[in-house]
Amino acid sequence: MSKQATTLPKGFRGDMPNGFNPQDTSHLTSEDLAHITRRQRLLGPAYRLFYKSPVEVSRAKGVFLYDRHGNEYLDAYNNVVSLGHSHPRVVEAIQKQLEVLCTHTRYMQEPLLDYAEALINTFGGELGRTGCAMFTCTGSEANDLALRIARYHTRKTGVIVTAEAYHGNSGAVAAISPSLGKKSALDPYLRTVAAPDSYRLPVEEIGRRMAEDVARQIADMERHGGGLAAFIADSVFSSDGLYVDPTDVLAPVAEVVRKAGGLFIADEVQSGFGRTGTHLWGHSRHKVDPDIVTMGKPMGNGYPVAGVVLRPELVAEFGSSMRYFNTFGGNSVAIAAARAVLDTILEEGLMDNAAKVGSEILDGLRDLQTKYEFVGDVRGAGLYFAVELVKDRDRKTPDMDRALAAVNALRDRRILISATGVDAHILKIRPPLIFTSANAARLLEGVDEALRSVQI
Amino acid sequence: MSKQATTLPKGFRGDMPNGFNPQDTSHLTSEDLAHITRRQRLLGPAYRLFYKSPVEVSRAKGVFLYDRHGNEYLDAYNNVVSLGHSHPRVVEAIQKQLEVLCTHTRYMQEPLLDYAEALINTFGGELGRTGCAMFTCTGSEANDLALRIARYHTRKTGVIVTAEAYHGNSGAVAAISPSLGKKSALDPYLRTVAAPDSYRLPVEEIGRRMAEDVARQIADMERHGGGLAAFIADSVFSSDGLYVDPTDVLAPVAEVVRKAGGLFIADEVQSGFGRTGTHLWGHSRHKVDPDIVTMGKPMGNGYPVAGVVLRPELVAEFGSSMRYFNTFGGNSVAIAAARAVLDTILEEGLMDNAAKVGSEILDGLRDLQTKYEFVGDVRGAGLYFAVELVKDRDRKTPDMDRALAAVNALRDRRILISATGVDAHILKIRPPLIFTSANAARLLEGVDEALRSVQI
Repeated sequence: MSKQATTLPKGFRGDMPNGFNPQDTSHLTSEDLAHITRRQRLLGPAYRLFYKSPVEVSRAKGVFLYDRHGNEYLDAYNNVVSLGHSHPRVVEAIQKQLEVLCTHTRYMQEPLLDYAEALINTFGGELGRTGCAMFTCTGSEANDLALRIARYHTRKTGVIVTAEAYHGNSGAVAAISPSLGKKSALDPYLRTVAAPDSYRLPVEEIGRRMAEDVARQIADMERHGGGLAAFIADSVFSSDGLYVDPTDVLAPVAEVVRKAGGLFIADEVQSGFGRTGTHLWGHSRHKVDPDIVTMGKPMGNGYPVAGVVLRPELVAEFGSSMRYFNTFGGNSVAIAAARAVLDTILEEGLMDNAAKVGSEILDGLRDLQTKYEFVGDVRGAGLYFAVELVKDRDRKTPDMDRALAAVNALRDRRILISATGVDAHILKIRPPLIFTSANAARLLEGVDEALRSVQI
Repeated sequence: MSKQATTLPKGFRGDMPNGFNPQDTSHLTSEDLAHITRRQRLLGPAYRLFYKSPVEVSRAKGVFLYDRHGNEYLDAYNNVVSLGHSHPRVVEAIQKQLEVLCTHTRYMQEPLLDYAEALINTFGGELGRTGCAMFTCTGSEANDLALRIARYHTRKTGVIVTAEAYHGNSGAVAAISPSLGKKSALDPYLRTVAAPDSYRLPVEEIGRRMAEDVARQIADMERHGGGLAAFIADSVFSSDGLYVDPTDVLAPVAEVVRKAGGLFIADEVQSGFGRTGTHLWGHSRHKVDPDIVTMGKPMGNGYPVAGVVLRPELVAEFGSSMRYFNTFGGNSVAIAAARAVLDTILEEGLMDNAAKVGSEILDGLRDLQTKYEFVGDVRGAGLYFAVELVKDRDRKTPDMDRALAAVNALRDRRILISATGVDAHILKIRPPLIFTSANAARLLEGVDEALRSVQI
């Protein structure tokens, strides 16, 4: 266990591939080793595999992945195929559209407008009344565009994010993603504030503290830098460690941000499209009315489609002086996929399912917390859970080794989850929204076994 | 004609949407006007439509688009669906894969490696022998990643591009895309060199001049800035105005770039995948061995897939210290689409077709050059053509008004092309690779008629 942890490259943090080490492959089959060797040659040194024993997949259906030998894996870590693998309605929508038309947004296409309207209609407040939608292919592109627009509109450069935020992989958004590690080149105009760590901070103070932190950073920025363009947050603070509660945090922050002339950008790549069970958009849990909302991963259930919804006046000048065109963004097939996903979530009660099955899982995880001393905290909303492992309940010392071992113990039981947080000591569980009570029971049984196996 | 041109926003350049003006809509049907009004509300002020009378599309097949009334448009401006709209082999590959598996690259998947190998095998030189492939969703993401890697590897910041280059829409690559216009914020470490304008410069001097220009910029950079990270070029200089010849330009440039410790990045988004007829990759026409190749648009015939092929040592440090993950990049369906596209190009002789039909079109356009005084120059390679319209053959004065009128005259004849160049005075014709001799004849007849109609 400790060996595995110490061989991880330094500066390697949250969302890590859970312990695969190319220098430690003696436990692998020769078949897997051959694949991995070939993979390293063909995909190069930047690609990483999940788990100490990587998983080969050949097909998938619903909440299950299958390897070439027919072994079944329970997928409890997937908010891309949020409706489940190969969801029939989405598959059919894409299949049909492919035969009809797949072209870009510089021609008039009715379904593009119909989807934009349906999407905007899911928002409350100002965005629901007057918002407009822009389409990209990935959440990274959506955040990158939001950042460009915010800076262009405000003529300011400063950006505030939480301490372990992740907002994407393009040069501009990687530079506002401190979770990428010490060696990443952060934006010189980036400032961070502490995440709303409900496990370590007094819950009733979190909202006020964060607003004060943001105000302090803004004041400093205005003194020394270019002023505030935007505050960007994922409302469940996924890569910080998943802090789903309290939900009175972001409204006071938004107030401070607006007072300074900055924009509030809600990154819904993680929390959007019903993930939290009670609201389609995570920011609604905080009763905040963002200036810009970005979205991605689950939007097309695997089809690369993402987007930005924003107040049109923010993009007026950018739109008239700049040329922004995203070749594949919002193409006919992307729109068909996104439409099928949104309709399915709304019509098939997937948020209610997420809330119901989610509370079963949350209860089960809380039972495990009473059973295992090293489970320091359990957090969750809808079908998104964090199980924080600590060496000591009083001092709340992160236990990365045990978390890595637990993730791999689950993988050995063919249940797929991951770990997150700055110390990668927080189990991150995020099953598709179609998870059933039976799937939940199987997951909980697996987590129980895995935690028992790492108890010593 | 002049009215249309003068109402265009200032600073609005190459690749413009060809004359649509929201302030001049009296010629539109009430149906189209209603659509456009709704579109402006839902998609906001940054979206642009092609043509003075925008085109509505409901379906497409092969080289044709159809509106809801069944009107047929000849698509001579499409290097996304480079194999033609709804190509049966690509459609089927995507349809089948959707039912089997669509997941990311952190699991082992055989077809991912098979495609990476097939792709790498298409390269000559060093990349073909030892290159590795990384997958993204868009050409912008590919260039953005290449730029990040180049800067990380060289520890330098400087980038050199041609004067009207376009390398994508993310913050980082928009900042190295001077074609986006005067109001775009260019990278402070960007330097530009003149495009190899074969119409205005002595052809035998172009290669030497460009290498000297690059050397001068590097020397200045080293004196004042952070040194050279990379030179990036599209080998057909598409947004500069399409300069397909001479092809002895980039090898001497690459030599100068390497001597300075910089990387040579070949942007194959426009010229790749057989577009030029004789070579799968545009840079091969210049007999240059790039350090990094980026690709996008036609790679999945409309499916959002793009990539980077590079020398693995360039990404070694980036790969070990940074976390780069592209959720949808190289997912199972993207790979199935890309595989079908590459196999089709290679197995169905589409490059030969592009060369054969391309030379028919080039001959036809040259005949039109003798017929119309204002056709100053005709350039082409494979199925990519530039027809440069000038007010005066001796002074070679760009004639933007006439080019816009010609593009719209063609659109009125239901033939779709565009315009490019800093003054948008160059007709840009880029049909799918499956264009037939009959399609070519129809195109040429249309161009002849359109040029005749703008002759006065």
